[in-house]
Amino acid sequence: MASTLRNLVTVLSAAAMLGAGAAALADTKLAPPKGYRTWFHVNTAIVDKASPLFADIGGMHNIYVNATGLKALKSGGTYPDKSVFVSDVHDVTLDNGVYGEGGRKGVAIMVKDAKKYAATGGWGFQFWVGGDPAKPVVTDAAKQCFGCHMPQKDHQFVFSTYIP
Amino acid sequence: MASTLRNLVTVLSAAAMLGAGAAALADTKLAPPKGYRTWFHVNTAIVDKASPLFADIGGMHNIYVNATGLKALKSGGTYPDKSVFVSDVHDVTLDNGVYGEGGRKGVAIMVKDAKKYAATGGWGFQFWVGGDPAKPVVTDAAKQCFGCHMPQKDHQFVFSTYIP
Repeated sequence: MASTLRNLVTVLSAAAMLGAGAAALADTKLAPPKGYRTWFHVNTAIVDKASPLFADIGGMHNIYVNATGLKALKSGGTYPDKSVFVSDVHDVTLDNGVYGEGGRKGVAIMVKDAKKYAATGGWGFQFWVGGDPAKPVVTDAAKQCFGCHMPQKDHQFVFSTYIP
Repeated sequence: MASTLRNLVTVLSAAAMLGAGAAALADTKLAPPKGYRTWFHVNTAIVDKASPLFADIGGMHNIYVNATGLKALKSGGTYPDKSVFVSDVHDVTLDNGVYGEGGRKGVAIMVKDAKKYAATGGWGFQFWVGGDPAKPVVTDAAKQCFGCHMPQKDHQFVFSTYIP
């Protein structure tokens, strides 16, 4: 069940993001985080062709969390401001039943700032196509992202769980 | 092509490992590395039901490398002794076309010691069922592991490539 929920966070939130609209209208206050590839690898999920969400967000979602967020993920304590989760989304290769990691499709984040993002559970959201800072797609985080996170209120709106 | 090769390393080497035989006969000089979950996440692959290898090694393979190995992976330079790659193998959950990460099936490693493991390209190999130090399964690394790595001679017998 935990795995299912972990998948859904990636799927649903990213789906909303990708259907967002013009980059010109996007919240450009956020920027893709640097160095996330060296952060803690939380888990991975693949949205395959059989998923109704494939058209929007098919691919491999590698989830990372920064050191600030990792402490809370492990302990179950409150995520402090500057906690960041990243979903590093890649195309998927398929070779004789083996799914592999292809090129980068985009980078999604949720970043904690309890005051600044009070309207969306204390988390700010954005998705950049190809990870390109010039291509953000989230224009309305409350609608496009937070709606799917709301059921996780008892878990600080986070789907990820800690896998030792 | 690179992705395909990255997949194959996981698949073929682990397949040989899992078919290895009694743990009692295994090389017990190696131990599962501590802290690999915080190492650099190289890539992920899933061996699905459609793969002929599913029965042996179906699951999600999360590949990590330690800091020593990462430098060489990035630069293309020679892997120094004590470079370690880990494949953290998990069961796969499938929910409406979305593949997620289930429980741990096992932990595979390749560790560099040019002199000690000269017969297998300078790499030592082992696989522990469930990551349990008491359950190694590789008894003949040359046969069970290295055979599949030999075609990668021009890449120091490593299939992984660096994904920024």
